[in-house]
Amino acid sequence: MAGGSGTRFWPRSRARLPKQLLALWDEKTLIEHTVERFKGVAKPDAVWIVTTEALAAPTREKLGAAHGKVRILGEPVGKNTAPCILWGVREISKIAPDAVIAVMPADHFIGDEPAFRGALSAAASRAAKAGSLVTLGIRPNRPETGYGYIEVSAKIGNEPLAVSQFVEKPDLRTAARYLESGRFLWNAGMFIFTAKAGMEAFSRAMPGLVGAFEKGGSIADVYGRIAKADAVSFDYGVMERAASLGIGVDVVPAACGWNDVGSFPALEEIGRASRGEVVSVDSASNIVQTDSGFVALLGVTDLVVVRDGEVTLVAARDRAQDVKALLEKVRARFPGSV
Amino acid sequence: MAGGSGTRFWPRSRARLPKQLLALWDEKTLIEHTVERFKGVAKPDAVWIVTTEALAAPTREKLGAAHGKVRILGEPVGKNTAPCILWGVREISKIAPDAVIAVMPADHFIGDEPAFRGALSAAASRAAKAGSLVTLGIRPNRPETGYGYIEVSAKIGNEPLAVSQFVEKPDLRTAARYLESGRFLWNAGMFIFTAKAGMEAFSRAMPGLVGAFEKGGSIADVYGRIAKADAVSFDYGVMERAASLGIGVDVVPAACGWNDVGSFPALEEIGRASRGEVVSVDSASNIVQTDSGFVALLGVTDLVVVRDGEVTLVAARDRAQDVKALLEKVRARFPGSV
Repeated sequence: MAGGSGTRFWPRSRARLPKQLLALWDEKTLIEHTVERFKGVAKPDAVWIVTTEALAAPTREKLGAAHGKVRILGEPVGKNTAPCILWGVREISKIAPDAVIAVMPADHFIGDEPAFRGALSAAASRAAKAGSLVTLGIRPNRPETGYGYIEVSAKIGNEPLAVSQFVEKPDLRTAARYLESGRFLWNAGMFIFTAKAGMEAFSRAMPGLVGAFEKGGSIADVYGRIAKADAVSFDYGVMERAASLGIGVDVVPAACGWNDVGSFPALEEIGRASRGEVVSVDSASNIVQTDSGFVALLGVTDLVVVRDGEVTLVAARDRAQDVKALLEKVRARFPGSV
Repeated sequence: MAGGSGTRFWPRSRARLPKQLLALWDEKTLIEHTVERFKGVAKPDAVWIVTTEALAAPTREKLGAAHGKVRILGEPVGKNTAPCILWGVREISKIAPDAVIAVMPADHFIGDEPAFRGALSAAASRAAKAGSLVTLGIRPNRPETGYGYIEVSAKIGNEPLAVSQFVEKPDLRTAARYLESGRFLWNAGMFIFTAKAGMEAFSRAMPGLVGAFEKGGSIADVYGRIAKADAVSFDYGVMERAASLGIGVDVVPAACGWNDVGSFPALEEIGRASRGEVVSVDSASNIVQTDSGFVALLGVTDLVVVRDGEVTLVAARDRAQDVKALLEKVRARFPGSV
């Protein structure tokens, strides 16, 4: 899934250069990292990217010749993750009806790739054996309020477990309770299931959406039929309702240094906060990124400072997630800079 | 006087582009403003600029053809203001022994030029009539601790007054007392005297410095002779000691919107804090200058943000005067950027 037009890395990210096409912590783009994570796990032409029509060409370009066999689907319009995943699952089912499918966001960080591959392998086995929908659950190490959680009833080890329920982003007190209980995992939005189980789950949980595809015509026709009710997340439309529809839902615990890299401050969590040269005096806890020259800091703390092309952004670190309001103003005055 | 290599406007100012050669609040450089302030008061070739040898050519260039007749003296080395003023006074005395000389810093702001010219005219009359050293004294409007003060014994009106004493930069409590008393003026470093009185004052107050010039040779020879003892300010070496040497010292009160524009925050005092485009949300009391693109602010206050060429500076507003420590570090890593 590589359709995001995330704004939280603006000005590094722009409408035509969303987060997954950026190199945020080394010289590789996030989508390159995501694709390469499957080396030795899936053949190159078994990697499918669903993005928007507008981003299909830039995505192909960023992946380059090294990943020339990767398949790219371009949605006429972004309609949340359920249509995106259904389209991919349908296309894969046509040519590989016995496939095990892993659904992954293209713009996350995985610090421990061997651990990730181990969890993925366990999830694939479980999906193949049980025919269930399997999700990777990240072991929490802090009372994070920015993620959804997955509750299980048994003690968490390395083995797959049945999901009790999915829960929304909690407040801090609830998050602390989740952490303490040892029965909650972070929902990282990574799903593993057989093509058959995936198609069956969509048919039961979202028959209207399946119908929009089955009526045929161009992909633009299909997306034209998708109503508000169908433009929901896969989490909401399928995963959270699966159990009540008699579909097994399992989770494989994973401790693989995962981070969704939701905003500039998250780069510090993965130890890659600064990019470019910085000279500082009496300054601390700043996140600095510059694409040219250097940034000089004097007596400042807890700032995000980003210079990219024509834009210089200075934001309070705890406001970095509120870039939307700023972007509305920027769009009005400098539409080319968003 | 245009020899300053002020660092407090870095990165807008650089070693080869000091403050007086910058345009800080409109399209004109500060030295252009200073020269043009004397239009109709002094003929073009009666304007003398004393700067450093290295800055003579850039100064000439910035002044351009419009001020081609202005005379420029280039000091081999900056030795504070006493040698600078003595050199100028000697040169002027040679060709115009009856001149009244006004000594001015090249990098100050004057908001009310008619008021300035009125005060200058009153000072020139007094200097010609009394043969005294006259200084312009700025009426204080706040308990400023960043300036030296001039004390008078009489009530301050518009008329010239005898100076009681020059006093150093006060602490806040003392500054408040000065303001309340109504008998103190800011010392703006602007002096008016006849060529004759100037030469006489130097001879009595700084005979060693005068000797360094009178021994002749090249100007490099002269400056080579100036010892530490002679490399003092005109304030310290002449003005503050004049009364005790039997030289009259007067002050003309001036309310002419003067500001010495000592650092970026001072630009706000003169109502010209921002330069370039700024988009801001939930941000206040920031001083922003950019030479390209725009600066976006989110949830930040009391910052100085300056983008100039390869440098992006972000400083706490109340640390803007401490740029020296930062520049030492910058000089070590990016010597070409200072």
